[in-house]
Amino acid sequence: MTKYDKDSNVSYTLGTTLTLELLNKKVSSCNRVYIHSKQLQNDTLNKILDICKNNNIEVIYSDKIINKLSDKENCYIVGEFTKFDCDINYNENSICLVNPSNAGNLGTIIRTCAGFNIKNLIIIEPAVDIFNPKVVRASMGAIFNINFKYFKSFEDYKKLTNNAFYPFMLKGSTNLHVVDKKNPYTLIFGNEATGLDDSYLNIGTPVRINHTNNIDSLNLDNAVSIAVYEFTKEEVNKNE
Amino acid sequence: MTKYDKDSNVSYTLGTTLTLELLNKKVSSCNRVYIHSKQLQNDTLNKILDICKNNNIEVIYSDKIINKLSDKENCYIVGEFTKFDCDINYNENSICLVNPSNAGNLGTIIRTCAGFNIKNLIIIEPAVDIFNPKVVRASMGAIFNINFKYFKSFEDYKKLTNNAFYPFMLKGSTNLHVVDKKNPYTLIFGNEATGLDDSYLNIGTPVRINHTNNIDSLNLDNAVSIAVYEFTKEEVNKNE
Repeated sequence: MTKYDKDSNVSYTLGTTLTLELLNKKVSSCNRVYIHSKQLQNDTLNKILDICKNNNIEVIYSDKIINKLSDKENCYIVGEFTKFDCDINYNENSICLVNPSNAGNLGTIIRTCAGFNIKNLIIIEPAVDIFNPKVVRASMGAIFNINFKYFKSFEDYKKLTNNAFYPFMLKGSTNLHVVDKKNPYTLIFGNEATGLDDSYLNIGTPVRINHTNNIDSLNLDNAVSIAVYEFTKEEVNKNE
Repeated sequence: MTKYDKDSNVSYTLGTTLTLELLNKKVSSCNRVYIHSKQLQNDTLNKILDICKNNNIEVIYSDKIINKLSDKENCYIVGEFTKFDCDINYNENSICLVNPSNAGNLGTIIRTCAGFNIKNLIIIEPAVDIFNPKVVRASMGAIFNINFKYFKSFEDYKKLTNNAFYPFMLKGSTNLHVVDKKNPYTLIFGNEATGLDDSYLNIGTPVRINHTNNIDSLNLDNAVSIAVYEFTKEEVNKNE
């Protein structure tokens, strides 16, 4: 038993609430649950133990394993799950991240996707590993709510979908406020430091989020949030 | 010389670009600049040395001090600055954060404020320390572009402004899409875990950002970004 290894076929939910999300949303992927001696006897623990019992999931009481897996002081429950593949309908609204590098950003973007009913997340390699426990934690369990898939190149993904493409970039772009929004769409965002290169200029309709010159760019997860908010506005209103 | 101490009157910019931001935007607060032996001779270094020379800022070559101040491997330039107060015009558009606890969130919120021309950031205690180098770094230097002020309570701040208040909360709230937006305004956001309590229901116009039940809430910095984007939309269009 060691810390998370990206080449292993398992990953971990580090924390009580996160482990409950795993059990509620992806119980078939959960292999076992570790419990620390400092975990209080409470309703959440009882819920977790019930689900484990009903699904024949092994429960292991071990402070040593939890201390190895988590660097946070107050992590008392850890779930181990097998990494999973997702079935994607490529003609639904999607977010595409090209070379995302930051685990925290990827996690919050997943949470935002789940919050605005964007079911598909396309990731172009090289990219941060979505099963890194930091990503899982930053997603607050939303990783178990969405579908995602890694591709070696944007071209490989492009072949599979008829979606309207909206690359977010400064060059040749239309303001997000006024851009004509076609369904279904794929909103495309570049790497945190480098953005999208000019090859994306010829793909669909380039879009920008206007900001002052006081900053170089918005934080990636903030740019995605604003874009998704604007693109889903009408639909969210309709369903209210 | 020790790591950052929140009770000290100085803080640090950990990194080359960040230190250049300090020198460009708040040179009068900069006390000295530390340079690591691994820093390459390049244009950025020359710019930094020039500004230091022209402003009589001490330059100290010390790997030991930089290694103590930064836990990142590739931090080769550190600026030391005296913590500063800001002059605030309380009748300009503002963001108010009630008990923010996360350094990274506060930093990206500062960056978003600078990006959308929100000049004032009001922080209600208890709250994370804005001069923590983690906040400074997450702001990517935008901390030197905005005005901020801490208050012991929201009541203390309220006395100083005639702004229209928009507390972001679920209870009794209007959808952000349709809420009547009055200028000048203060957009108010609660703590990451607990949000705003019911006392804010009677302050101005409660607003919500609709999302699915798949998540408990949006990440704080994402909620602020979406709100600021929507509130500044018209103005940004006008200035284009």
